[in-house]
Amino acid sequence: MTDPSVELSVDECWDFLRTRELGRLAFRLGEDLHITPINYAVDLGPQGRRSVLFRTGRSAKLVTAELAGLVALETDEIVGESAVSVVIRGRLRRLLGDEAHRAENLPLRPWVGGDKLDVVEIVPDVVTGRRFGLNRPWLRLRPEPGAGSEPVE
Amino acid sequence: MTDPSVELSVDECWDFLRTRELGRLAFRLGEDLHITPINYAVDLGPQGRRSVLFRTGRSAKLVTAELAGLVALETDEIVGESAVSVVIRGRLRRLLGDEAHRAENLPLRPWVGGDKLDVVEIVPDVVTGRRFGLNRPWLRLRPEPGAGSEPVE
Repeated sequence: MTDPSVELSVDECWDFLRTRELGRLAFRLGEDLHITPINYAVDLGPQGRRSVLFRTGRSAKLVTAELAGLVALETDEIVGESAVSVVIRGRLRRLLGDEAHRAENLPLRPWVGGDKLDVVEIVPDVVTGRRFGLNRPWLRLRPEPGAGSEPVE
Repeated sequence: MTDPSVELSVDECWDFLRTRELGRLAFRLGEDLHITPINYAVDLGPQGRRSVLFRTGRSAKLVTAELAGLVALETDEIVGESAVSVVIRGRLRRLLGDEAHRAENLPLRPWVGGDKLDVVEIVPDVVTGRRFGLNRPWLRLRPEPGAGSEPVE
């Protein structure tokens, strides 16, 4: 059986990230692992470096995560029997002062209401992505509506 | 501003997990954090304990993660301007011998082809979920198609 998984190039990963706005951010607090959905936008930082920005409440656990090492952001899309998943691994960096203005022209708001928002950048170390086929044979096992004579378990 | 985020009960979290089949699993390998989409199914384990099963290739990084402490599985759904996100935190346990048969009646196949598959259980420590309103004001800023006279930037 050929492996239907295809690695995406780094440019393809960024192109995909730009078409989406929802990702799931994994981060550590001590020994605990957390995942939370975030609304992100791709941005160009200093020296044209591509990165991802999001907004978060100043009291959020995420801000503490800044000190806790690597984070990973995953975003994906499933259409029919094919899926794309892209992961950025890197570190969080809070944008302060003038740098925080980078967020103003991006479609970037916290999904949950609140004030005192910080702008946080994910500075990427590694960006990887793959396109792969889904293998969900049980979807084909469902009887057609009205097919009639099959026993229904 | 009232906070539109509502915590789900543990039973509501499990009910939600049962209606979905795609989650994103975060796990550690050394200092690295990984996230990968998985196809899961909710199952009852020994003593009626609710847990989550998935299948993975025997050579996958995930199997190594078994020894690496806590994992977190997130699943979510966004409909209009409201979202639900449920997270299970726990540990991985490979099911061996007779126990692996628990997977046979579940809609559980690896999404990526391959053989030598293991059945892995996420033994939950903590299950949390919330329902929250989305705040994406820029969606309303897009001009209606054909609206005509607005300047287009």
